[in-house]
Amino acid sequence: SKLGEDWIFLVLLGITMALVSWSMDYASAKSLQGSGIPEMKTILRGVVLKEYLTLKAFVAKVVGLTAGLGSGMPVGKEGPFVHIASICAAVLSKFMSFFSGVYQSPYGYTDILTVGCAVGVGCCFGTPLGGVLFSIEVTSTYFAVRNYWRGYFAATFSAFIFRVLSVFNKDAVTITALFRTNFRMDFPFDLQELPAFAIIGISCGFLGAFFVYLNRQVVLFMRRPNILTRFLTKHRLVFPAVVTLVVTTLTFPPGFGQFMAGELMPRECINSLFDNFTWTKIWGSPLPPGLGRSAVWFHPDVSIFVILILFLIMKFWMSAVSTTMPIPSGAFMPVFVLGAAFGRLVGEIMATLFPHGILFDGILYRIIPGGYAVIGAAALTGAVTHTVSTAVICFELTGQISHILPMMVAVILANMVAQGLQPSLYDSIIQFKK
Amino acid sequence: SKLGEDWIFLVLLGITMALVSWSMDYASAKSLQGSGIPEMKTILRGVVLKEYLTLKAFVAKVVGLTAGLGSGMPVGKEGPFVHIASICAAVLSKFMSFFSGVYQSPYGYTDILTVGCAVGVGCCFGTPLGGVLFSIEVTSTYFAVRNYWRGYFAATFSAFIFRVLSVFNKDAVTITALFRTNFRMDFPFDLQELPAFAIIGISCGFLGAFFVYLNRQVVLFMRRPNILTRFLTKHRLVFPAVVTLVVTTLTFPPGFGQFMAGELMPRECINSLFDNFTWTKIWGSPLPPGLGRSAVWFHPDVSIFVILILFLIMKFWMSAVSTTMPIPSGAFMPVFVLGAAFGRLVGEIMATLFPHGILFDGILYRIIPGGYAVIGAAALTGAVTHTVSTAVICFELTGQISHILPMMVAVILANMVAQGLQPSLYDSIIQFKK
Repeated sequence: SKLGEDWIFLVLLGITMALVSWSMDYASAKSLQGSGIPEMKTILRGVVLKEYLTLKAFVAKVVGLTAGLGSGMPVGKEGPFVHIASICAAVLSKFMSFFSGVYQSPYGYTDILTVGCAVGVGCCFGTPLGGVLFSIEVTSTYFAVRNYWRGYFAATFSAFIFRVLSVFNKDAVTITALFRTNFRMDFPFDLQELPAFAIIGISCGFLGAFFVYLNRQVVLFMRRPNILTRFLTKHRLVFPAVVTLVVTTLTFPPGFGQFMAGELMPRECINSLFDNFTWTKIWGSPLPPGLGRSAVWFHPDVSIFVILILFLIMKFWMSAVSTTMPIPSGAFMPVFVLGAAFGRLVGEIMATLFPHGILFDGILYRIIPGGYAVIGAAALTGAVTHTVSTAVICFELTGQISHILPMMVAVILANMVAQGLQPSLYDSIIQFKK
Repeated sequence: SKLGEDWIFLVLLGITMALVSWSMDYASAKSLQGSGIPEMKTILRGVVLKEYLTLKAFVAKVVGLTAGLGSGMPVGKEGPFVHIASICAAVLSKFMSFFSGVYQSPYGYTDILTVGCAVGVGCCFGTPLGGVLFSIEVTSTYFAVRNYWRGYFAATFSAFIFRVLSVFNKDAVTITALFRTNFRMDFPFDLQELPAFAIIGISCGFLGAFFVYLNRQVVLFMRRPNILTRFLTKHRLVFPAVVTLVVTTLTFPPGFGQFMAGELMPRECINSLFDNFTWTKIWGSPLPPGLGRSAVWFHPDVSIFVILILFLIMKFWMSAVSTTMPIPSGAFMPVFVLGAAFGRLVGEIMATLFPHGILFDGILYRIIPGGYAVIGAAALTGAVTHTVSTAVICFELTGQISHILPMMVAVILANMVAQGLQPSLYDSIIQFKK
């Protein structure tokens, strides 16, 4: 096989990349850690964070993010992209102010940063609409409607270029969604499945709140003064190195990784979780053609349920810990993957409970576990970030809007539960940094 | 045939309904004419319009709207629905204030009205997301992000009930989109088609500005004091009666209506314009099965192009004039139909220019005129209302998001042109009423 011949090499590469990433960061400015969304929220409220939106920060963040993503850790790129796009917007507006006085007013500056945030999320996933809405929800309290139009404009063109580039690059034949799904459209789901969707929503609310709690506990532990943390503060490279070592060792595909689909990159992971097969039906029989990378989820001796549950538990704490590392890292993508896995688990359980599908009007409609995975992904990211526009991001990412109502119900339920239990991940980070 | 046996009956019915509608209105309060969105925008800016949000206004508007829609005139229901939902919200909050003090604060009142507007659009089309965004764009200048969540919540449940009712009513087998389309998803469009989408956007910008201009000219003409208008002001029933008579006579299906698909109700009209056939290829040969109501667009002696152009021209002035009548009437749906027809026209022209489709990577991809119709509908409504969220409403109405990028480009171009030429329809109405 391609992967896994050289365990030592992979671990070393992972550690090296994480360290390069972290040191790039540290050398330039300590404030570049993490996603950047909490800082942007603070700046848009009127707090001046010096040197946060400079060209130097831009270079450091881009290099740091590239290295961080290359390390294979469960970290995302959407938060750092918000920061990077805001820096671009700020620097560009400073440059433009030589030509036009419009760019010098403080109101104009806030407008430009708001639009920058919108573009950041939009071009990261190629989801202009969801990107604008998500960035409004996470960064603003009061929003000037004129910026909605501007954000939409900028995000559409960035998403457009992002998708056109992949066409020119021959990655895609035409402009389509990033994680395109192919669920049937004539009867996407039955009303009798709604309780299952509601359960996904409520469970994701609890899981999301627990994720924020776990993330905060790790940060608080690292700050508590004792022998261990004093040692870690002195030798700043040790914490990321140890985390990387543990995570890469556990996900090593020929080792424990074979029980948690460790071979899959985040993008493959999402594509396979959203696929159109019913895994519990396939497992045990010869794998059908066209399964593609989803085949990694199948282990000859271990049930699909065990693998999904192991994946969920392992990735859950890995994501919560990894996002506390002092590297540029977003939590959106890891949480999205977790949500998709949880939704898939519920979908596969439903497919086992109703093996012949659900009877309606004399026709048996098969359960689509992939649809549950999409709903789970939207609900869990919604719960962690306290936003509802993750549903829009999901429609744009999958290119299908057929599950709109159950998804919105699930996202709203997840938000109700999570907002009652914990602050959003970004507000939780703002609270420490104060 | 079912329709058209009794010309006199149809005209009389139309006139009677329009008159009932108008007189209901006039008897209760003059301010209930038109869509209500301009008034809501004024109220949300802090102007107090007395007796605009009372139970009496609610009853009058509901009866007036029902009669107005029943008259068969090209008027929509989304604007009045915004007003009706806002009245519900206002009355409900007055009722709730007996139990909780929260409802007495002026801030809370504005919040409740904002959410009411969102629900109005959302439940009108079963499009919660687009409804919330559209109502934000047309009614607010600064928007409190907390209301986004609330609007989303309320609109989802209203859309949910709206769609579930149609399932219980056996109109639909499960919860699906209102105007569901079935375009191919693997290759929805080719990049080489983008110039055509851009042309739709720019043309719709001009058409939208012209619509607003025409609408204003009719109102200004009616206000100019001369013998005719003095007569019309004295005999207030004459203007709506004459308009209804002319419109119903012209659209009478066995008469001139056969050249402009006069037989189709607005809903059938949209469904047929969004269908998956290429009409120019079908015309002249025996009609294929499964064409359904789209067959009305085919006339044995007249080309599809002539029928589409006649439809456009006739419906254009009819819609612009009808929306000035003193009855509760929205302009969204008529403009949506016009945009769909214009998009279809461009799509059919493209299908004639490239009869074998567009070559890409060795495969010929057929042009889908229905996709052009969806884009035209979004672009023209966007141009008339100066909003970009009409694209979202389109995704939700059709249940397909595959044309997202060309649609957003078209909507943005339409907005750029229209915003440069004319105020939005709602702002134009606010300007007279001042």
